[in-house]
Amino acid sequence: MTIPTLNETHDPTLQSWVHSANEGDTDFPIQNLPFAQFRRQDSEEEFRGGVAIGDQILDLSRVASLSVFSDAAQIAATECAESTLNKFMAMGRETWSALRLAISRGLRLNSADEKKLADCLLPQRDAEYALPCHVGDYTDFFASLNHAEKTGSLFRPDNPLSPNYKWIPIAYHGRASSIVISDHPIHRPSGQMKVKGSSEPGFGISQKLDYEMELGIVMGAGNRLGEPIKIEEAEQHVFGVCLLNDWSARDIQAWESRPLGPFLGKSFITSISPWIVTLEALLPYRKPFQRSDGEPKPLDYLDSPTNQRQGAVDINLEVSLLTPSMQANQQAAEVISNSNFVDCYWTIAQMVTHHSVNGCNLRPGDLLGTGTQSGPQRQEGGCLLELSLAGREPIALSNGETRAFLQDGDTVVMRGWCDNGDGPRIGFGRLVGTCSTALTSQND
Amino acid sequence: MTIPTLNETHDPTLQSWVHSANEGDTDFPIQNLPFAQFRRQDSEEEFRGGVAIGDQILDLSRVASLSVFSDAAQIAATECAESTLNKFMAMGRETWSALRLAISRGLRLNSADEKKLADCLLPQRDAEYALPCHVGDYTDFFASLNHAEKTGSLFRPDNPLSPNYKWIPIAYHGRASSIVISDHPIHRPSGQMKVKGSSEPGFGISQKLDYEMELGIVMGAGNRLGEPIKIEEAEQHVFGVCLLNDWSARDIQAWESRPLGPFLGKSFITSISPWIVTLEALLPYRKPFQRSDGEPKPLDYLDSPTNQRQGAVDINLEVSLLTPSMQANQQAAEVISNSNFVDCYWTIAQMVTHHSVNGCNLRPGDLLGTGTQSGPQRQEGGCLLELSLAGREPIALSNGETRAFLQDGDTVVMRGWCDNGDGPRIGFGRLVGTCSTALTSQND
Repeated sequence: MTIPTLNETHDPTLQSWVHSANEGDTDFPIQNLPFAQFRRQDSEEEFRGGVAIGDQILDLSRVASLSVFSDAAQIAATECAESTLNKFMAMGRETWSALRLAISRGLRLNSADEKKLADCLLPQRDAEYALPCHVGDYTDFFASLNHAEKTGSLFRPDNPLSPNYKWIPIAYHGRASSIVISDHPIHRPSGQMKVKGSSEPGFGISQKLDYEMELGIVMGAGNRLGEPIKIEEAEQHVFGVCLLNDWSARDIQAWESRPLGPFLGKSFITSISPWIVTLEALLPYRKPFQRSDGEPKPLDYLDSPTNQRQGAVDINLEVSLLTPSMQANQQAAEVISNSNFVDCYWTIAQMVTHHSVNGCNLRPGDLLGTGTQSGPQRQEGGCLLELSLAGREPIALSNGETRAFLQDGDTVVMRGWCDNGDGPRIGFGRLVGTCSTALTSQND
Repeated sequence: MTIPTLNETHDPTLQSWVHSANEGDTDFPIQNLPFAQFRRQDSEEEFRGGVAIGDQILDLSRVASLSVFSDAAQIAATECAESTLNKFMAMGRETWSALRLAISRGLRLNSADEKKLADCLLPQRDAEYALPCHVGDYTDFFASLNHAEKTGSLFRPDNPLSPNYKWIPIAYHGRASSIVISDHPIHRPSGQMKVKGSSEPGFGISQKLDYEMELGIVMGAGNRLGEPIKIEEAEQHVFGVCLLNDWSARDIQAWESRPLGPFLGKSFITSISPWIVTLEALLPYRKPFQRSDGEPKPLDYLDSPTNQRQGAVDINLEVSLLTPSMQANQQAAEVISNSNFVDCYWTIAQMVTHHSVNGCNLRPGDLLGTGTQSGPQRQEGGCLLELSLAGREPIALSNGETRAFLQDGDTVVMRGWCDNGDGPRIGFGRLVGTCSTALTSQND
């Protein structure tokens, strides 16, 4: 295996002829180049692949039809013209890299292709997005020790962690059908739950709707059934990373989860950001995978020199809340928590390797959630369950409102970005969801 | 909603001009007519839809191209010519029924279409099968109270059932990518496990490979995200039922399952039978949904007059084991357990309704496992974990061998059939899997 190294696409001094890409506040400088599926808003056009540059989208379908690129990059652009990116994701790291290089060169200041590529741009404000790929299977990990400890201690103060936690990247299978793209309305689910003190469960509308700030790991080339992925090869199979909100109904989840884990408390909806930041773009933000003294050493199959040296990724995560009252008073959304993926107990490579170690096959476009990402401090919780101590201490917003859980009309905005102080930051865009009023109960 | 009633296709006196369909030992009399995806063995042909009749397959692709049928049945047959049955499954109950009626009439003794249809037959012994549909999501229920109680009592003798068991059709999301068709080799997975008495977990090859005798419920027309399926309409959304073996690695499962449920102990492989028996074919075998005295009444959303009257289905289930030693001595596989789906604590309609009550969308071809089906008696356990009391009392085979769990080379054969004493029995064919030698450990 070749371990990728920084190349010309990472040069922090690069500038683009798309001027908005050179501004300090953009998520999408020329060093980023994330992928999405888009079309002109409110149109009947086919969705196709695009790459973000500043406040524009480079339409890869048009790039392919104009044959701006050659060789592997042209073939890759042609695959990106399809209605999902799955085939492109299946092509593997060398092809992704060839396309990235061609796009980077074409979008640079003084590119000979500026005129042709300028013809392939659509402003992001005029676009709408679809899921970037068909998600065959969605798996959700539980990889933040801070989250596991803090939520565990709410319910089992003496014994917050299960005995396997520090050995296994714990995960459960999630629901693929109900994954939606950013801005999809979030319906409040109904279900069975047991109110404290009542002897029998009842049926009703969830009163404990929550978000979970996660990252989504999008698989590239898969593995065959029965053939595990070794940890030194794991990242070759990963296409990129997006933001993920694992919406949760805590009352439904609490009553249903024993003994087989979360089910309807999660499967009503899961949303992801439109933009997938490639693993190659994240290369300048890799960090050593470090465990505190006294933590167990990972078993051999979850350990490797590369993972130790650069298994972690420094990604800042932020959750904001916009309530109906803020909106009515034209206030901006309020940041309610920050965390960083570098604090995660398990790395991307460890999650991929563990998932396939039994021979389970991962396919291009499959999605792995990292689990809620929480920092060590109380205000760094990645969900309201943590921040409000399971509703016992509602959080206070600066306009005087409080929240134990989400209320109808609340909008949750998630962001993520990398910034190593050396050149422009690269961002993940926004993942937005607004809680709609409750579904009519089946019993009405 | 119209509740389906027996029609001419269920007439127990019907006979077919395909003589093998009239023999007493066939699974596939003209009253059955289950669907599969097949092609000529070892060929490069496209897989296409077919219907079993006696020892033959009616090739629906050929039926469609010869335009043997008309109207809805012709349109349906055309969809069955595709490489998966998902589109046909999406068409809904009236269309499935129209095609069933046309096939039944065409295959009857003295059919005017005998000559044309005889040209569309392939012997089953010359065929190979693919998954009948693309499975978007796979969910596994835990719907047999006998199984839940017996396995629960192995590990928690004082408290075998979780408090929600009799209120919720408990389920977890399973892995769709590793679902395979009958006869696919079953690899023994590696993984993390904790040996009794050791202070730390280790990595190795599973020593506790098990089968689970389940039924698979295959979804037809789906529901939209956010729109639950009411129980009185649930069965309209179900295409049919197949056999399902939820292979399990008990040692991996035991160590990983807390707190989020089974993961790698299950996701290495799941196999299903090629033939899907339609819900319409199962109509003569419906039974009242009965709960013993003292059992709680289901909550309103899981209760309906139709479900009470005929929610259950009388399906006999049988597991046989063929060991390498039996094979060497030319012995037949030995039946090691029997059970019946009529004993299931939850009905198909209850599982579908519960799954969607939070607004989760089910799609055509989605698969719901019923969970291991066990009868009330010890020898009616649907898995070795139950039969051998978690390995403490290995079962004795008539050739003197014993089994606590499966050994390499063991073949598990599952069968299912309905027989109400009134006409021919209808069967599900066979679901076969042979345990291959272990995967090479990643650490070798």
